[in-house]
Amino acid sequence: MSLDIEKDNNWFTETCDECGSAFSLKIEEKLHEETSDFQKIEIYKTATYGNLMVIDGFTMLSDRDNFLYHEMMTHPALYSHPRPKNVLVIGGGDCGTLKEVLKHKEVEQAHQVEIDERVTRLSEQYFPALCSSNSDPRAELHFADGIQWVKDAKPGDYDVIIVDSTDPVGPAEGLFNVNFYRSCKRILAEEGILVQQSESPIAHIKLIKAMRKAMSDAGFKYTHTLDFPQPLYPSGWWSATMASGTKISEGRIDDIRAQNFETLYYSEFKHRAAMETITYLHKYLD
Amino acid sequence: MSLDIEKDNNWFTETCDECGSAFSLKIEEKLHEETSDFQKIEIYKTATYGNLMVIDGFTMLSDRDNFLYHEMMTHPALYSHPRPKNVLVIGGGDCGTLKEVLKHKEVEQAHQVEIDERVTRLSEQYFPALCSSNSDPRAELHFADGIQWVKDAKPGDYDVIIVDSTDPVGPAEGLFNVNFYRSCKRILAEEGILVQQSESPIAHIKLIKAMRKAMSDAGFKYTHTLDFPQPLYPSGWWSATMASGTKISEGRIDDIRAQNFETLYYSEFKHRAAMETITYLHKYLD
Repeated sequence: MSLDIEKDNNWFTETCDECGSAFSLKIEEKLHEETSDFQKIEIYKTATYGNLMVIDGFTMLSDRDNFLYHEMMTHPALYSHPRPKNVLVIGGGDCGTLKEVLKHKEVEQAHQVEIDERVTRLSEQYFPALCSSNSDPRAELHFADGIQWVKDAKPGDYDVIIVDSTDPVGPAEGLFNVNFYRSCKRILAEEGILVQQSESPIAHIKLIKAMRKAMSDAGFKYTHTLDFPQPLYPSGWWSATMASGTKISEGRIDDIRAQNFETLYYSEFKHRAAMETITYLHKYLD
Repeated sequence: MSLDIEKDNNWFTETCDECGSAFSLKIEEKLHEETSDFQKIEIYKTATYGNLMVIDGFTMLSDRDNFLYHEMMTHPALYSHPRPKNVLVIGGGDCGTLKEVLKHKEVEQAHQVEIDERVTRLSEQYFPALCSSNSDPRAELHFADGIQWVKDAKPGDYDVIIVDSTDPVGPAEGLFNVNFYRSCKRILAEEGILVQQSESPIAHIKLIKAMRKAMSDAGFKYTHTLDFPQPLYPSGWWSATMASGTKISEGRIDDIRAQNFETLYYSEFKHRAAMETITYLHKYLD
């Protein structure tokens, strides 16, 4: 059962079979297409969402709505940790998550480990706003395999690990299993937090449940799933899942109130709402 | 520039031209189609979203995700009012909003004024869960023109008016202008609150701005726009806009904490987050 829209040059369509849904954006121009060593990367100019990056047929980010994802992947975890000094971003080649991480003055060092250098180079060209903090002296951009990186890192190297990867097919597949989570647990310092994008609360409940179980099997005693709107991704409703060996706190609320940087969506109460588990998720995940 | 997917019988697609986006759901079966006195109504069985109601080509609701919309259209407004005794729902023929309203024991009377009786009859048949409170003795279902209803009602008749209408084209067009809002203001009691669905924060900023201006021109001194995820509607990110002649409070937080009914998405902190204005909206609306 194919979708005729996929053949329409004026639209980019991502069909999500397991969601039973598809999302289309009106395209003005294809700006770039290449096949890197890892994946096919396309950049489009859309009619209403600004520039759009697509990897292996999946929408990754647009100018217009990426702030929702990048803020919610970063700030709830960083404000839930008592003192996030050393942060690791796995994936995140567009550098939007890294930019949010570096807004926290407590962060002393942020390592980004993206397997595909081309994603970052194209982001520098087509999404320059997201790369504006790449020259921050606290940032180190490594182009390497994240799975190997977490195997090689030393115990206690990181306070927060953010897994900002593509979907669990292709190069990112190995980022959604117990072995990877075990490595993450080993290199997290005390009170360390792992956070990973965990797909749609309405379309991917099985995946979220499996992720949480794998995190738990890897020794993370506490997991927490938070939700946020994300127009570009299937269903427009997205989630991130945190894991920690120690109870995840409601967060440094006073620090959020005193926040000296701008966020467009994230706020004290968006944080607190994210740190509650909504009944809908309780019903499906517990 | 048309979308070929629209011709595909296995998918229902809503194209939103001004959004530059389209959303498609995989269809298993068309359950019903009719043209009522007011509009074309279709009911589909989808592969993953349960039953789906479509009016004049626009998705109205699905079994799977309607709780987000119905809860966020109702509870923030009702909990922001000090004592919501008399509630008016304009539109809302599927009865999902009415059901949420009747969960509040403070509500003594709820009038629903839907122009098209067929919407309610089809909802009783295809979305019975949403109609389960229709026989509540506090509920009165009227099938009449909402614009006329608010013209005829007496000053102070209502504490909360919820405008749960289709988009501002077709029969609902008259529900998005200063004359309608003026009538609403007249029939609201002191501290009364009007709340109306106000489309997508990412795709319909101009409309939200125009609505807020019209509300203000009608004499509502305070307006507030809140956001929530809504997979079925264009962009998956939706909003509701409140208007009141008196300052809208942060809400009866103690009552929310003591809430004796279940909500799947709405909670104390979802409420508080909804009652803040996110920076993104500040930037565009102020």
